[in-house]
Amino acid sequence: MNQMHDHIVKSYDDEQRRLLEEILRMGHMAAAQLDAALDVVERRDDKAAERIVANDEAIDAIERAIDHDVMRLALRGPMARDLRIILAALKVSADIERIGDYAANVAKRSTALNLSPPLPHTRGLDALGRLAAQQVRDVLDAYRDLDADAAQRVRNRDAELDTLYTGLFRELLTYMMEDARAITPCTHLLFMAKNLERIGDHATNIAENVWFLVHGEEQLPPREKRDATNSA
Amino acid sequence: MNQMHDHIVKSYDDEQRRLLEEILRMGHMAAAQLDAALDVVERRDDKAAERIVANDEAIDAIERAIDHDVMRLALRGPMARDLRIILAALKVSADIERIGDYAANVAKRSTALNLSPPLPHTRGLDALGRLAAQQVRDVLDAYRDLDADAAQRVRNRDAELDTLYTGLFRELLTYMMEDARAITPCTHLLFMAKNLERIGDHATNIAENVWFLVHGEEQLPPREKRDATNSA
Repeated sequence: MNQMHDHIVKSYDDEQRRLLEEILRMGHMAAAQLDAALDVVERRDDKAAERIVANDEAIDAIERAIDHDVMRLALRGPMARDLRIILAALKVSADIERIGDYAANVAKRSTALNLSPPLPHTRGLDALGRLAAQQVRDVLDAYRDLDADAAQRVRNRDAELDTLYTGLFRELLTYMMEDARAITPCTHLLFMAKNLERIGDHATNIAENVWFLVHGEEQLPPREKRDATNSA
Repeated sequence: MNQMHDHIVKSYDDEQRRLLEEILRMGHMAAAQLDAALDVVERRDDKAAERIVANDEAIDAIERAIDHDVMRLALRGPMARDLRIILAALKVSADIERIGDYAANVAKRSTALNLSPPLPHTRGLDALGRLAAQQVRDVLDAYRDLDADAAQRVRNRDAELDTLYTGLFRELLTYMMEDARAITPCTHLLFMAKNLERIGDHATNIAENVWFLVHGEEQLPPREKRDATNSA
């Protein structure tokens, strides 16, 4: 009887561990999609862009599988602590799914960009995107290790991303005012930059989930504020 | 013993009903925020815009409360069907939270818009926003009534929203090309329009949750596709 109980407990833990591994795998796929999207912007490679857009389906499929796994684990009547872990898993996977969507949208918009001559601003976009990809990878590590301090560093570094975004936004506006032919491609760049800034926000959401997993109900520590392009 | 069991069962149902009522209340708050945001764009009322931005915190607070309620209900070891209902509740409230964010962002950007003279395109934005608000209210009704057909109608009507969005997007680009002074305000309008289109996507997400609540694992029926401004 005791042995059977041990067996059940072990198997729950195994399944929960497998769930977390699956989320990390999904997260690294999304980060790789983002890298690939930034590459196709630089290389102006429409074929590769299409492949990235198509790959997004694989990430969505993992999210659906994770939903099922969470459902199955929750039905086994976990204790509060385990329930918190699997509900957080549901949120983290939703954030990763959005990161994947934004990466795919960057790739998709790059094909629209390629209808116009190359613009110098893709370099600023690349810097923004590389930082966003780093944030995603760092927060995945923090999630894997349940490292609240590392998560807090990701949250704080989001301000850097916002500063880069705001700078690029202003630069693009100026460029559009100087050359009307640049308006259409720059508009795509604006949306691509916004996507990258949003990826940073989702990394921040994941960081906040890590914080709550470690510290429970305790209030989040303060952090610096968001992008300044919204308002006057 | 039997009576006590009845009592527990009834109380679970009551709590679950209360959870769904709370989500509907949150949803109607988000729809009201959207209406208010569209009004301040028309009236160019910065003070009212600030109030809308501040009100968003109330919606975020309800989402946190719903997270707790879901956690509490899940700890009571619900059956598969009830667990599916409360996990869907978690997703629906996350979508509503995003709808509230987008509505607040429309209000916030209106203050940037008010630094420039009025533009004729706010009328197109208003039409887009009113349709988005209608979609939100219709999907909340479908969720309340667990009406999969009504949910499917919301999903299909999202194509109308996308068509309006694409039209407005093109119109704004043309306008920017004709008058460089319009570039900054039109960029804000582009992002505001994108926010409204995204609100429609979140209404669609909720519709899909309603579909799965009613039909279980069954595959979603096909629907028309999204906005055409992303790509070539």
